[in-house]
Amino acid sequence: MALVTLSDIQAAAHRIEGAAVRTPLLRFDDGLWLKPESLQPVGAFKLRGAYNAVARLPEAVRARGVVAYSSGNHAQAVAYAAKLFGLPAAIVVPEDTPRVKVEATRSHGAEVFQVPVEQREARAAELVVERGATLIPPFDHRDVIAGQGTIGLEVLADLPDVATVLVPVSGGGLVSGVATAVKALSPSTRVVGVEPELAGDAAASLRAGELVRWPAGDRARTVADGLRAEPSELTFEHILAYVDDIVTVSEEQIGAAVGVLARRARLVVEPSGAVTAAAYLARPAEWASAGRAVAVLSGGNVDPEVFARYL
Amino acid sequence: MALVTLSDIQAAAHRIEGAAVRTPLLRFDDGLWLKPESLQPVGAFKLRGAYNAVARLPEAVRARGVVAYSSGNHAQAVAYAAKLFGLPAAIVVPEDTPRVKVEATRSHGAEVFQVPVEQREARAAELVVERGATLIPPFDHRDVIAGQGTIGLEVLADLPDVATVLVPVSGGGLVSGVATAVKALSPSTRVVGVEPELAGDAAASLRAGELVRWPAGDRARTVADGLRAEPSELTFEHILAYVDDIVTVSEEQIGAAVGVLARRARLVVEPSGAVTAAAYLARPAEWASAGRAVAVLSGGNVDPEVFARYL
Repeated sequence: MALVTLSDIQAAAHRIEGAAVRTPLLRFDDGLWLKPESLQPVGAFKLRGAYNAVARLPEAVRARGVVAYSSGNHAQAVAYAAKLFGLPAAIVVPEDTPRVKVEATRSHGAEVFQVPVEQREARAAELVVERGATLIPPFDHRDVIAGQGTIGLEVLADLPDVATVLVPVSGGGLVSGVATAVKALSPSTRVVGVEPELAGDAAASLRAGELVRWPAGDRARTVADGLRAEPSELTFEHILAYVDDIVTVSEEQIGAAVGVLARRARLVVEPSGAVTAAAYLARPAEWASAGRAVAVLSGGNVDPEVFARYL
Repeated sequence: MALVTLSDIQAAAHRIEGAAVRTPLLRFDDGLWLKPESLQPVGAFKLRGAYNAVARLPEAVRARGVVAYSSGNHAQAVAYAAKLFGLPAAIVVPEDTPRVKVEATRSHGAEVFQVPVEQREARAAELVVERGATLIPPFDHRDVIAGQGTIGLEVLADLPDVATVLVPVSGGGLVSGVATAVKALSPSTRVVGVEPELAGDAAASLRAGELVRWPAGDRARTVADGLRAEPSELTFEHILAYVDDIVTVSEEQIGAAVGVLARRARLVVEPSGAVTAAAYLARPAEWASAGRAVAVLSGGNVDPEVFARYL
């Protein structure tokens, strides 16, 4: 299957300009720089891919609106992107989604459908048929991957001699895009994925050289609720082609990293977004010996009570 | 006395490039954008002014090192700027300064002198004489003001049609620099200072048209520990010339703003840095009716226990 290319990502960068924040690279210590995607309008990198995918739709198709099923950052991103284009957005969420998330999605003007979790996909498919709207998937889509890849362009523009880029891995859209950009522009830079140990299926897959499936119940054990998905065929092809390694971190290391980022970098980062900093902080001298490292902090949508626990 | 000029600030912008972070402007809602200076390496805008002042010293003078007396963000900024130049820095702090702040200052390679609070100034003066080092004052200095003014250049570059810029006021270095830059480039943009009600001496001074002095004990009542200083003759001249108004906010409004910024903008902002957002949030429709507003968030150095209280 055709992989995303550098020029796809460069075109995405032009499209998302003004919609997504051009996040700065923040020096954390002598060896680590942070890429705080938590500062995006919806609090996560997801806006890059969602906006690029919506922007790529032919105008007549786009006008019929967009659909997404997600309880998390992707839903917010699709709703926000639709608002910027002035389009209707229908978001399907599980019926037990916290009200605060439902309200946040509605605040972007989206229509929210709450259904039993196992009916999400079917309800979204119905909406696509009923409205002629387009489904924007969270990661299994070339335009979404290309949008996330713009992070890689920005990292290299700001720190051209970066030795290692650490990227959270869930469905693999983010790491696929970033690795495609980084390897095209700087082949000697290592791209390393990071997963929770408790949802380490992508690490296992990379070791095995083929997709290894973990039960959803196992993947749901981690506090990093944004990292419970699993790669698709498309994202795993990118991972095999461009990702050097995938490492894992413990729940304790994730929580400690959330606290360190709040106290020392003054950033509110969700557990899923902090796994990269956790990987660095677990053995800073080892990473630093290879040169400068960048940790992509993918998002900052964390319940205040959970966050306060780690301060 | 000669006021700082736009060209002083433009020259400062070139000097601090690469040392200070070019912070992004973050859209908060339809009416408000945030300028998160909490993301600077020392967690506060102070690095801009301190670095510019150190950079402006003749090389032979600079080589003898720098001195500052401060227990707060300015001390960190001078220590960090000195480290970037490879210079010795001597920082004089009150003997009751929390150990975490002393350690942070030492971590930048500075020598820390702990003395009774009333001896700070005298001890700093001694160090200047003993070492031939240069004192870098926190706000009462044209090079410091020019450095802080670079924030104004960046705000106008990112949001040229900004109607109102909200800036915290303490000693007045930040608001002086920002107002100088903004009024030179966009005379119709209003620059509004913000103070805690409990330390509202600058607001009273602007109303009176002359410096009104409040007892230090009164100014120390606010939780916004970075806003307890008072303007100097130099900064007040700038305020009279360029600042349209100074408004005040309550302690309750300040705390609420810290919480809102954490939850909705994913930023750790100290109470002093959040007064501008507090002023906006107190009457958003009124500010928005004038057009787009920017709140300068001056810093993010807050004790985790204090911060957690507002989440």
